[in-house]
Amino acid sequence: MFSRIDHVAIVVADLGVARQWYEEKLGWVSIGDEYVDAVGVQVSYLRPSVTTRDEPVTLLQLVQPVEPGPVLDHLVAHGEGMHHVCFAVDDIDSALDVLGEDDAHVFAGGRKRLACFLGSRPSGVVIELTETEPGGSTVQGKA
Amino acid sequence: MFSRIDHVAIVVADLGVARQWYEEKLGWVSIGDEYVDAVGVQVSYLRPSVTTRDEPVTLLQLVQPVEPGPVLDHLVAHGEGMHHVCFAVDDIDSALDVLGEDDAHVFAGGRKRLACFLGSRPSGVVIELTETEPGGSTVQGKA
Repeated sequence: MFSRIDHVAIVVADLGVARQWYEEKLGWVSIGDEYVDAVGVQVSYLRPSVTTRDEPVTLLQLVQPVEPGPVLDHLVAHGEGMHHVCFAVDDIDSALDVLGEDDAHVFAGGRKRLACFLGSRPSGVVIELTETEPGGSTVQGKA
Repeated sequence: MFSRIDHVAIVVADLGVARQWYEEKLGWVSIGDEYVDAVGVQVSYLRPSVTTRDEPVTLLQLVQPVEPGPVLDHLVAHGEGMHHVCFAVDDIDSALDVLGEDDAHVFAGGRKRLACFLGSRPSGVVIELTETEPGGSTVQGKA
């Protein structure tokens, strides 16, 4: 059910500066920037150059907070750095049932996928879930 | 060259407790514990249950410091949580040449692979490299 790590998220002060390092030093490829309204952040995804856009591979997600909220609070309190690990699930409602976290707030995350952050923080780690495919019919019901 | 994220590392106070959450909640599978002498840590790797042991998938690495050193310092200063991202490379010496980090300390890392931490910390992120295959002839020369 929790089939792989979808992405590793890094909080940054400036997306352009942060992305440049991965592009120029590691040769990773941007698959686009987008604004995630539910969290008030601009995000940029990067994938390894040897993979295709649709191949299921763990991505990097650079996250620049642009509105007040938990991510901006994190940047102010801790500076730039690793922020969360996101696991891919086929169906987010089923996953939350299994975890006993049915009250989690499901929102429209990056890449048009349903997403949510868990209330559990095992070993201090912020954990997100995101669906493996775009779409999903439960955003409105859960929001 | 930097073909994928090999693993995401989480510093923990107790490997057994930390591993239990991923095994019981996410159904991830331990591929074994080992002591990494060069860093003074006990590590435990976990993979998604749907993959095989040899499939190239991004792993979780739980890291419990057992000797004084930077990882124990991190645990004391910051508590449990995300620690570093490790990228897979075919040849660590070539990768360090490309990055201009030839003075990095290469050591025998987990799963019998050569590894090193970069001096660069882009966006505050600790970055490790590890070779995609066990072995490698340069451990002694670099150590």
